[in-house]
Amino acid sequence: MQETESRVRVVIAEVSPEIDGGRFPIKRTVNETVVVEANIFTDGHDALSAILLYRHEDETAWRQAALSPLGNDRWRGQFLVTVTGRYRYTLQAQIDRFASWQRDFAKRVEASQNVQDMKVELLVGAHLIEEASARAAGDDVSTLQEWAKRLRLACDSSSSAQVQLALAEDLGLLVGKYPDQRFAATYEKELVVVVDREKACFGAWYEMFPRSSAAEKGQHGTFADCERRLSYVAAMGFDVLYLPPIHPIGRTHRKGKNNALDAGPDDPGSPWAIGAEEGGHTAIHPQLGTLEDFRRLTAAAKEHSIELALDLAFQCTPDHPYVKEHPEWFRHRPDGSIQYAENPPKKYQDIYPFDFETEHWRTLWEELLRVVRFWIDQGVRIFRVDNPHTKPFRFWEWLITKVKNEHPDTLFLAEAFTRPAVMRHLAKLGFTQSYTYFAWRNTKTELIQYFTELTSTDEREYLRPNLWPNTPDILTEYLQVGGRPAFMTRLVLAATLVASYGIYGPTFELCEDQPRESGSEEYLDSEKYELRYWQLNQPHSLKDLIARVNHIRRDNPSLQSDRNLQFHPIDNEQLICYSKQTDDGANAVLVVVNLDPHHIHAGWMNLEIEGLGLNPRQPYQMHDLLSGARYLWQGTRNYVELNPQVIPAHIFRLRRRVRTERDFDYYN
Amino acid sequence: MQETESRVRVVIAEVSPEIDGGRFPIKRTVNETVVVEANIFTDGHDALSAILLYRHEDETAWRQAALSPLGNDRWRGQFLVTVTGRYRYTLQAQIDRFASWQRDFAKRVEASQNVQDMKVELLVGAHLIEEASARAAGDDVSTLQEWAKRLRLACDSSSSAQVQLALAEDLGLLVGKYPDQRFAATYEKELVVVVDREKACFGAWYEMFPRSSAAEKGQHGTFADCERRLSYVAAMGFDVLYLPPIHPIGRTHRKGKNNALDAGPDDPGSPWAIGAEEGGHTAIHPQLGTLEDFRRLTAAAKEHSIELALDLAFQCTPDHPYVKEHPEWFRHRPDGSIQYAENPPKKYQDIYPFDFETEHWRTLWEELLRVVRFWIDQGVRIFRVDNPHTKPFRFWEWLITKVKNEHPDTLFLAEAFTRPAVMRHLAKLGFTQSYTYFAWRNTKTELIQYFTELTSTDEREYLRPNLWPNTPDILTEYLQVGGRPAFMTRLVLAATLVASYGIYGPTFELCEDQPRESGSEEYLDSEKYELRYWQLNQPHSLKDLIARVNHIRRDNPSLQSDRNLQFHPIDNEQLICYSKQTDDGANAVLVVVNLDPHHIHAGWMNLEIEGLGLNPRQPYQMHDLLSGARYLWQGTRNYVELNPQVIPAHIFRLRRRVRTERDFDYYN
Repeated sequence: MQETESRVRVVIAEVSPEIDGGRFPIKRTVNETVVVEANIFTDGHDALSAILLYRHEDETAWRQAALSPLGNDRWRGQFLVTVTGRYRYTLQAQIDRFASWQRDFAKRVEASQNVQDMKVELLVGAHLIEEASARAAGDDVSTLQEWAKRLRLACDSSSSAQVQLALAEDLGLLVGKYPDQRFAATYEKELVVVVDREKACFGAWYEMFPRSSAAEKGQHGTFADCERRLSYVAAMGFDVLYLPPIHPIGRTHRKGKNNALDAGPDDPGSPWAIGAEEGGHTAIHPQLGTLEDFRRLTAAAKEHSIELALDLAFQCTPDHPYVKEHPEWFRHRPDGSIQYAENPPKKYQDIYPFDFETEHWRTLWEELLRVVRFWIDQGVRIFRVDNPHTKPFRFWEWLITKVKNEHPDTLFLAEAFTRPAVMRHLAKLGFTQSYTYFAWRNTKTELIQYFTELTSTDEREYLRPNLWPNTPDILTEYLQVGGRPAFMTRLVLAATLVASYGIYGPTFELCEDQPRESGSEEYLDSEKYELRYWQLNQPHSLKDLIARVNHIRRDNPSLQSDRNLQFHPIDNEQLICYSKQTDDGANAVLVVVNLDPHHIHAGWMNLEIEGLGLNPRQPYQMHDLLSGARYLWQGTRNYVELNPQVIPAHIFRLRRRVRTERDFDYYN
Repeated sequence: MQETESRVRVVIAEVSPEIDGGRFPIKRTVNETVVVEANIFTDGHDALSAILLYRHEDETAWRQAALSPLGNDRWRGQFLVTVTGRYRYTLQAQIDRFASWQRDFAKRVEASQNVQDMKVELLVGAHLIEEASARAAGDDVSTLQEWAKRLRLACDSSSSAQVQLALAEDLGLLVGKYPDQRFAATYEKELVVVVDREKACFGAWYEMFPRSSAAEKGQHGTFADCERRLSYVAAMGFDVLYLPPIHPIGRTHRKGKNNALDAGPDDPGSPWAIGAEEGGHTAIHPQLGTLEDFRRLTAAAKEHSIELALDLAFQCTPDHPYVKEHPEWFRHRPDGSIQYAENPPKKYQDIYPFDFETEHWRTLWEELLRVVRFWIDQGVRIFRVDNPHTKPFRFWEWLITKVKNEHPDTLFLAEAFTRPAVMRHLAKLGFTQSYTYFAWRNTKTELIQYFTELTSTDEREYLRPNLWPNTPDILTEYLQVGGRPAFMTRLVLAATLVASYGIYGPTFELCEDQPRESGSEEYLDSEKYELRYWQLNQPHSLKDLIARVNHIRRDNPSLQSDRNLQFHPIDNEQLICYSKQTDDGANAVLVVVNLDPHHIHAGWMNLEIEGLGLNPRQPYQMHDLLSGARYLWQGTRNYVELNPQVIPAHIFRLRRRVRTERDFDYYN
């Protein structure tokens, strides 16, 4: 029985958002709001007042935001996060005795309670005001004392005007400024928001192999070639350029073309086979250029408003300097050899995984942190992390927290294609963004179910999806069989369902759809194992469509958030229809996509028209931002028809205001 | 970076049941199981082993139960609770290196990996067995050493028989007995189960006013009269007899008949107006008898297998001894008077609430605890708590925890008809059972929705519903307009939807349905304010039906649990159909109720027949335990028709085995 705690009568419970009882933070980007809800109640009938407390971790003092009752004991408040880093939030509530008194006094007046009772009640009210004046500051002290005096005078008068002054709203507000916090309840936890810069949520990524960027066929591309490629990437509207590992590639057990076990003398090997005598994770593959070249590429990209993202693949080839310098970081087999990666019976003899259970884990962790810091020093702030689910979760939590404490603008994308609980856990422990199952969600039912989960459940608080229709490892069956329309369909879905997406190019825009073999999701003649030369200006290239789609994304703020996705029914299983709008409703976009790459489909949709801010009795204009066409619609049921051979999607901007004769100057 | 923690690679997350991040315990009764689930996973491909740890708080050592994978990283285990009090549970998991090794070795054998590789792998295996032998005890040490030796020998042999021994299941089990727990993960919380005796879940309550139990009209009933009433209550099959407060009743501002503001000289007052010069919460109303009489009633009830439940109404009349002895426990108004209860403009001047914000809260809490202990000393172990939501939540949490630590067989029923969040919080903080909104859930949709919430969500872990079709304060509109059939319908629903229910009699079995005034839920001539004399043996009494229903409840274990409720579709909105069966399926009951008290209704149901353990191609027998009739049904669709004037419900016992000619002795 603690002295004050025992007299605290207010309960704050079932706070949301709160991930796993507060064990993990939620995520936001700068200038987003955090909406907090909680059950707040007390015994009996007393009125309550409650506030939301929040502060950036760099600040010591709490800021306050109002909490308002929603009914049924649920309260809601919100605050804006404006600075990257970590914020904390918690809640405080107390019994508002004066508000209770005013509320009850009004009922007494209405019920014409007897004079003697009212006199006593006015004294109670005066006393509460005097108590508030003792807590008050500045002019409010005397103002409150004056109010109390007037209430005491009112006791001796029977004038209803005198009595009404007790109910004055400004009196309530003034007393409310100085609440009696002796028995205030504070929520038992401080919850955390990690605040990232905008690109953590909204970005268009382009992945390409630098070595395939040479101007001439057969040449090994360089950073200088990449520089020349920047205007092409920028013209398509991408703002992140993600490069697979740029480090020296091992020679021992190097893989050949199409993942052949033995490499030919000219085979360049996989960029993920990191480490050779030229160096490891902080070295640059000599054929790409120098660190100086890399810095120049970074600067040139910046001029195109493109940010470079590097790959963090924490694994080594047998030739990596670590193997000699730190054999204690690897597991040794009874024959003295180092344990290579395997998933029996498959062997990956070109790869040595780190042994995170080593007694020397501490130096290993520090070294990997040093690698990240090295690239941060070169100006890199985005890391795509290769297979994070094959390294310990605690390591990532430590590394990401550490780096983001030093550089809160750093972003980490988790490339984990694994089971749902593991994907969620990686996001919870700190990864800024996550790859998803999007590549394998093709039907309407699958898409609605998956994106409802991602954007409407607690998951949206900590897992930011980044949608990739293809990657160097994933050429889906849908893309293999659907031809160019399939690529267009997947592009529009990826770019509009959520705010971050990426493509692996130029394979994507060139609609490369040949697998290494039937049933495989690997590309034929994959760039992972050989140099490719790309003819970029082919007529079937999707680059212009991509440019338009990225332009639409930038022009329409509703496409820059994940939480506002809403699906609408449409009476054709091959058509999917969804809308997104900004909180203020100023920008609203409606997307309809034909999921069948082979046939024309048409259907009638059923819009939730009032949710879209439309008047059911007035026409509205749907402006297709892809084709430029404008349609005049009315009501909830409207017809669409999409020919995948032309373009399998509409991205409508909703224009609520349609001009009529009343807009004509001389009408009035 | 802590030394061992950092090398722990296993994650245990999203444990269920876990209420509000472990802040509150879950509830069970003795011999129930606690089924625990969690996500358990590690980075990479290693196999895991996991156990559930649990112990009664009186024990110091943890017991273990197995956890098994359900797929998708979800694991499940269970343990039985056998003793009242509090148990703790948590989880532990580790990488099972030898299981991983055996699994991988099997794949290597299947893929015929080369001899050199296999040799090295056998050495790895032998080494793991040797490590286990170092952790082993008794004979297992040498057995494991022997296994290791055989594996080392197998390295030099190419015999596949030799190799197979590495895969032996008993070897895996033996090594598994001695797991390497250096990097074992333990769940960060210990969660609590409060274990109650069976009556916490399964009981039939009867509420009656002792003062209305006199043998002659106009007499004040006594505990001796109650003794004579016991055989009547027992014959109906009730096992809890709940008495409204039995303490001296205040005279100041005493309420008259039908809650009249002024009592006549002979009006007995409300039993909830506790305290007079004769005493307070530990005294007995002189007209009921003495403490000795109360003890005799308790003993006599016990002989009828009936347990007494008392009312805890923590409030005082102006005449209560506390008012003089402890004025500091009450709030004083500016005119020196004590603040009576009000909900403006309503005044309850006969009641002084305690001021739990008093500086003297500590002596107040201790005194209220003393009251509970006093009645516990008289043999009372069940308390129905009046309006707990008007006293502080922290007080209840303290009181209930304290009492149950001393007497874990004590049960507290929360009489709170208030908002959902408050109802749930009272249950979480420790109330054994809760009144519900059942009285106002009348339609099929309402019932299915509410009872799905109560029995299928997390709520079932901590809130045990006790269903009351009526109380002295609640004569629902449904009962007012539906006549005797309405009482039958509500009886069957209350008695079969969940395991605890109660009625307020004799009003209920006599189908008293007159409200004080139209639109009111108060009884006309309510026993709360006057003595009533009841003619128990009237032909329309439901006592025989009640006896039968309670008999059915006792005979059918499936009706003694809340978690097994399943609704089945039936094509008539006025008919509701649900089943309950025991975990082993040995007892299964199907209930169909006509919710319309005025008309005959018929419908076709759609049973989930396989969930009920039935063969869709074989007939089964439905034995109506209310009417005694037996029906032969087959398949999922079956017809029922219920006439509310006869009886508005079936309670079928499902008899799966129907005799055929094959059961005839001479058939074979």
